Amino acid sequence: MAKASQRGILFDAYGTLFDVYSVGSLAEQIYPGQGAALAALWREKQVDYTRLRTLSDRYVDFLKLTEDALRHACARLRLALSAAQCERLLGQYHRLTAFPEVLPTLTQLRSQGFALAILSNGTPRMLESAVDAAGLSGLFTHILSADQVRKYKTAPEVYALGSAAFTCPAAALVFVSSNAWDACGATWFGYRTFWVNRAADPIEQLGVVPTGEGRSLKDLAGFLADDFSSTR
Amino acid sequence: MAKASQRGILFDAYGTLFDVYSVGSLAEQIYPGQGAALAALWREKQVDYTRLRTLSDRYVDFLKLTEDALRHACARLRLALSAAQCERLLGQYHRLTAFPEVLPTLTQLRSQGFALAILSNGTPRMLESAVDAAGLSGLFTHILSADQVRKYKTAPEVYALGSAAFTCPAAALVFVSSNAWDACGATWFGYRTFWVNRAADPIEQLGVVPTGEGRSLKDLAGFLADDFSSTR
Repeated sequence: MAKASQRGILFDAYGTLFDVYSVGSLAEQIYPGQGAALAALWREKQVDYTRLRTLSDRYVDFLKLTEDALRHACARLRLALSAAQCERLLGQYHRLTAFPEVLPTLTQLRSQGFALAILSNGTPRMLESAVDAAGLSGLFTHILSADQVRKYKTAPEVYALGSAAFTCPAAALVFVSSNAWDACGATWFGYRTFWVNRAADPIEQLGVVPTGEGRSLKDLAGFLADDFSSTR
Repeated sequence: MAKASQRGILFDAYGTLFDVYSVGSLAEQIYPGQGAALAALWREKQVDYTRLRTLSDRYVDFLKLTEDALRHACARLRLALSAAQCERLLGQYHRLTAFPEVLPTLTQLRSQGFALAILSNGTPRMLESAVDAAGLSGLFTHILSADQVRKYKTAPEVYALGSAAFTCPAAALVFVSSNAWDACGATWFGYRTFWVNRAADPIEQLGVVPTGEGRSLKDLAGFLADDFSSTR
């Protein structure tokens, strides 16, 4: 337990702690029959835009980028988007639902002495609001945002925020993400990684494999026990 | 005409000159009922992998990356992929169909004195094979590949290959792509751009707009005439 207390765990936020598709229910209220399609396309464009803007060095923050992605997704699906609807849908990002196992799992990890952090593309304000809304306040030692380096994942500068905050090598930290590409990017960077493979997807063919994999955050405890005993 | 002869035009390859979804017909032969889904997911993963590998500085060439994307797409759709099937599907990239208007349009542009080039993520060999197979040999002054800089679009280093080859500022060249994100990336870089919007999609919300837009390469001639008279 004393040794475990030296370990830090970094969590991706969207899709990993917070259920991004929960915006779909609000979208469904606004656009009956189109909520799921809008949520999926919105998320797809959001990820696309993080990559394009980072590759081309044209940073805007994640709230602006998320609004841009929403506007494009609505246009593509031929859905009118009023200013009020835009504000409601974006506001949902400040009150995303956490997956049901998140609070008990994180509470348990804290009680075991792990230090927890978020490392996300979201702005500090978006992350803090979502943490509060999901009842996760006080669990995290650090809430780290890509906004600090004005680049998005998988740029190494973003992942470097984690090892800098914990002042230790990446290999001494565990990075957890439900996004396969994020788990791969973090593995490339040097973290030990755990892929929360909620959809039971096949692995990405990127020549790199996350250190561990599970179906929900519940599987993280077993991974950490094995990983800690094998790497101490 | 003499002034027009000083203008160079850069073309993206896949989706712009060559119909990437034409691989769908072979995919449909191999996997009846799944060809279109496989072709679309294959293409999506191919684009994803170019971005992830460039962001994380983990370059592999476009043929390897395209094979990786195919393997993932098949796994995701639960389609078995034998070595022979993989080779057949990848081989299709060396003999893609050109869109029907490509040959007459490029021939006309050449006769008007424009210098033509390809600027693509594809490897030199993939591009040369596809050009030959599509009957476009001899039309291009340069065939420029991202492989030269070991990064993929929309990294500025890739777009810089065009202005370097023509030894002129980007603003003096026209870049043509059917991929909205590519047209946006090239506009950010400084090219005058023409988006071949084959699917009549809404514009990307990236804070940048291609200089011109049309439904096929047939619309390029009109754009060039207007663009040339307004910028000479």
